[in-house]
Amino acid sequence: MIGVDLGGTKLLAGAVDRQLGVHHRLSRAVAGMGQRELLDAAAEAVLQAIDQGEERAAAVGFGVPALIDPGSGSVAVGAHTPLSGIAFAQTMAERVGLPVFVDNDGNLAALAEHRAGAARGADHAIVLTLGTGIGAGLILDGRLYRGARGAAGELGHMEIDIDGEPDVDNCPGRGCAELFVSGPALEREAARLAADHPASALGRAAAEGRPLAGPLVTELAHDGDFAAIEAVTIVAQRLGIVIASLINVFNPEVVVVGGGLIAAGELLLGPARELVARRTFPFVHERLRILPARFGAEAGMIGAAALAWDGLAAGGAQGAPGAEVVA
Amino acid sequence: MIGVDLGGTKLLAGAVDRQLGVHHRLSRAVAGMGQRELLDAAAEAVLQAIDQGEERAAAVGFGVPALIDPGSGSVAVGAHTPLSGIAFAQTMAERVGLPVFVDNDGNLAALAEHRAGAARGADHAIVLTLGTGIGAGLILDGRLYRGARGAAGELGHMEIDIDGEPDVDNCPGRGCAELFVSGPALEREAARLAADHPASALGRAAAEGRPLAGPLVTELAHDGDFAAIEAVTIVAQRLGIVIASLINVFNPEVVVVGGGLIAAGELLLGPARELVARRTFPFVHERLRILPARFGAEAGMIGAAALAWDGLAAGGAQGAPGAEVVA
Repeated sequence: MIGVDLGGTKLLAGAVDRQLGVHHRLSRAVAGMGQRELLDAAAEAVLQAIDQGEERAAAVGFGVPALIDPGSGSVAVGAHTPLSGIAFAQTMAERVGLPVFVDNDGNLAALAEHRAGAARGADHAIVLTLGTGIGAGLILDGRLYRGARGAAGELGHMEIDIDGEPDVDNCPGRGCAELFVSGPALEREAARLAADHPASALGRAAAEGRPLAGPLVTELAHDGDFAAIEAVTIVAQRLGIVIASLINVFNPEVVVVGGGLIAAGELLLGPARELVARRTFPFVHERLRILPARFGAEAGMIGAAALAWDGLAAGGAQGAPGAEVVA
Repeated sequence: MIGVDLGGTKLLAGAVDRQLGVHHRLSRAVAGMGQRELLDAAAEAVLQAIDQGEERAAAVGFGVPALIDPGSGSVAVGAHTPLSGIAFAQTMAERVGLPVFVDNDGNLAALAEHRAGAARGADHAIVLTLGTGIGAGLILDGRLYRGARGAAGELGHMEIDIDGEPDVDNCPGRGCAELFVSGPALEREAARLAADHPASALGRAAAEGRPLAGPLVTELAHDGDFAAIEAVTIVAQRLGIVIASLINVFNPEVVVVGGGLIAAGELLLGPARELVARRTFPFVHERLRILPARFGAEAGMIGAAALAWDGLAAGGAQGAPGAEVVA
C-alpha cells in the first residue's frame, strides 16, 4: 500500500505494509507550488513509490492539511494547500491508475497512533499534532470521528481566550488554542524571554542574531537554559489547559501529543500533566495517560496507508480509475 | 415506563409511553435531603407513578446530576446530590422491585431531544441545558457518547478564559464556560447593568429591591428594556463563543439549547448565531442549525424513560431486584 502525506511544504510518500511497517520512503519539497504542479508532483512520487515497492500496490492513501468531504474525497476547505474545491481522490486515481483514499492529515496521524502507536488498544483517544498550528484527530468508541461533514477535530480552533486576539491563516476565530500552543507560540515566548534575560543562553542566541525557532529553543531547554525551559513551560501549561478542556469534553483514556513541539519531550508533557491534574476532577484524570506520539514526521503517511488498507477492506474507494468525477 | 429526573432541588417522575408521550406526572421538593431521605422519596415517587399508570411499568429510568459509571449504575461523582459513591441502580431496583437504569441528566436531555425533539433525525447533535451551570449531552454518529468512564460531555468545564477566575461548586477548573453562560452569569451581568443604568426597567427593579433573578431579567428583556436586553445579549455572545468552539470540535448538524435560559428565546439564540457565523468557517456553520429545545423541564424525565426503553430492548439492566450489589 502507498501512503502519502501531502503537506503544505513537503510531500512524504512510502510503501507501507499491512502491519504499518514502512518500506521505502521518498520526499519532495512542494512549498509554493500551484495546483497543477502539486498534483503532478504527487502523482509522480506515487508512481515512483509503486516502482520501488516489492509487492504490487493495491491502492493509495493521501493525507492533506485540509477539510475533506469524506464521501467524495474532495477538498472542501484547504487553507494550507492550493487544492480547495477539487475532486482530489478521483483526480489522483486517474493519474496513478489505482483506487485512492484521502483524509485530513490530523485524522490520519490519529489513525496511525491508534492502530500501531501510543493510542493502540484505546477506545477513546485524542491525538494532537503540534506544529505551525494544532492538527488533531479523535478516536471515539474505537473509531475515527469525522462529524457531519468531515470537519470534526479542529481542536486548534477551540477558543480558549474569550477576549483574545484574532487567529491567523484566514481563521475567523479569536483566542484560538493554536495561538497559544504551537511552534509560533513557542517562538513568541522565547523572543520575549530572550529580551528579558540577555545573559541566558536564549538571550545570547538572540544577541548573536540566531532566529529563535522551535528546534533551537527546544535544544537550549534540553541543555538546561532556564529561559528556554521557561518558554517551553509556558506553552506546556497552555497545552495543559487545552487538554483539561478536552478531557471534560471527551473523557478519553489517552491523549497523544506529536508534531514538532514534542521534541521537548517531558519538558512539554510534565507541566501539561501537572496542570491537568490540578484543574480537573480526579475521576476524569486519574486513569488518563498523556503520552508522546510514537510516529513522528511519518504519522500522516502511515495513517494514509492505514486509511487505504481499511478502505479496500470495506470495498469502496473515494476515487477509482475510470469512474466518473462526481464533484 | 417510569422516568424520573432526580434533580438537586426537585424530583420529577412520570409514566412515559414508547413514543415518549407523558401520562401522569408528579413532583417533589428534595432540596436539603440527606442520602437516605432522598432515596426514600425517590422510591416512594416511583411507586406512586407506577400506581397511577394504566399499563404495568416494566422498568424505571433515572436522571441524576452526577457522573454515573455506565456499567454498574453507580454514582461516581455527585457534586449536586448526596448520592456520591452509592450503587444507585441496584439500590433503587431493590426498593421499587423493577429493573433500573440511570444516567447523567444532561445525557438524558440529549437523548430526549434526539429521539423526539429538536435533534430528531440528526446523527451529530449537541444538546446544552443552561441553568445553574451547563448540562450537556453529545449525540455522535447517531448515539449518545459517554467516553471512557461515562464522564464525557462536561461542556461547562471547557476553559474559555485562559487567565480566568476559579470555577465554583468544587470544580478545580478556571475560566470554565459555565461561569459565562448560565443563570448566575445572567444575574451578574444584570446587576452590573442595573447599576450602570438606574433609569432602565432593570435599574428600577433593582432600586425597588427585587432580586434580579434570571426569569425577571428575561421578562424585562422580552418587554423591551434595553438594559435587560443587553444583559441577555452578553450571555448570548458568550454562548456563541462556546458553540463556535464546539462546532470546530464536533462538526455537528444541530446544537439544541434548553434549560432555564432558553426562556429568552431568540434574544438568546439570535446573537449566539450571529457570533458563530462571524467566528467560524462557512463550511462548518453553513448547514448548522441552532435550535431551542423542544422539551423544557421534562427533558430529563423523558430521556430517563427513553434510556429505560432502550435498556430493556438491549436486554440488561444496571440494577435488578434480587441481583447482587456489585459496587
